[in-house]
Amino acid sequence: MEYTAENTKRGMKLEFELPLWFTEWEAALPAAFDTDGDAMRAAIEASAINIKEKCGGPFGAVAVDSTTRKVVAAGVNLVISAKSSMLHAEIVCIMRAQKAVGSHTLKPAKVTLYSSSEPCAMCMGAIPWSGISRIVCAARDEDVRATGYDEGRKPADWPAAYSARGIEVTRDFMRDDAAAVLKNYAALGGVVY
Amino acid sequence: MEYTAENTKRGMKLEFELPLWFTEWEAALPAAFDTDGDAMRAAIEASAINIKEKCGGPFGAVAVDSTTRKVVAAGVNLVISAKSSMLHAEIVCIMRAQKAVGSHTLKPAKVTLYSSSEPCAMCMGAIPWSGISRIVCAARDEDVRATGYDEGRKPADWPAAYSARGIEVTRDFMRDDAAAVLKNYAALGGVVY
Repeated sequence: MEYTAENTKRGMKLEFELPLWFTEWEAALPAAFDTDGDAMRAAIEASAINIKEKCGGPFGAVAVDSTTRKVVAAGVNLVISAKSSMLHAEIVCIMRAQKAVGSHTLKPAKVTLYSSSEPCAMCMGAIPWSGISRIVCAARDEDVRATGYDEGRKPADWPAAYSARGIEVTRDFMRDDAAAVLKNYAALGGVVY
Repeated sequence: MEYTAENTKRGMKLEFELPLWFTEWEAALPAAFDTDGDAMRAAIEASAINIKEKCGGPFGAVAVDSTTRKVVAAGVNLVISAKSSMLHAEIVCIMRAQKAVGSHTLKPAKVTLYSSSEPCAMCMGAIPWSGISRIVCAARDEDVRATGYDEGRKPADWPAAYSARGIEVTRDFMRDDAAAVLKNYAALGGVVY
């Protein structure tokens, strides 16, 4: 492995480019999502657009203030375009939501995270730290694994464990819609990193 | 929760400020660490400085090219200063290492991650995605929990599971030194987020 001067330059910021399509798409979201269905449709839409845009895996997420139903932030998988294995849709969404509220915790804001798929092992560990109050997932873990992704080790009883921590879990919400996007990705021979 | 115009402005970048002390400290690291001890001493040093600088939890990490022993990147916990629950030392280190090599995977670079403490549930899920080849940990999970941090659910046999994935694990390396930093943090009444 070779290091160039540019590679090793120590910057003062840790920064990632958000793709133009995503920025424009996010900016065009309505101010609020009145229902779980509206919010999840947006998360799944992001996952589908991401296939065409080739920014990363077919995953999208939306964070909504559970009380006011206002959109706090959105996220999409940027592993390929931003060259960072951390930038799963949920992580991008949580990072942007924490920027929006100006805190490392979303707890006081009572945020619901809508994710087009169940969280992988990393995102499962990240959600309790984030202060998310509720998570709504569409595709199941096995739908994601069927596309070839290695989701890591996850305890089977994670919804109960989340619940015990005060994080409400809703699974299989619009699962078929999200699973169809994943199947399409696999059929198109999408990159599985 | 109120949203200001500034809060909700959609930027084109996802960016985090790295503290000046960290940038300077990282820039002053030697080009290479010949031994595990040298690399771990640096990771633990970062964890100790972070207490004084109040940027986040008392955790540091260093990524080294396992073949050339060159330093690829360092990381420190920035949860408080960067207001992001994701920015654990290991995550910052991996993000910067992936930037240094220009890829979402560190696999071809054969990188060893030295961490002042065992990974929490999030970092445990993040490491396999990152392409890290070897992890060396100082403080044990129970040393971290003793300071009050909720490390999340982790399988007890994680070193064996990592090994089965081809990730080599070295535990308890300079554990006492790292545990002493954690104890000092607890004694000082450091923030536990």
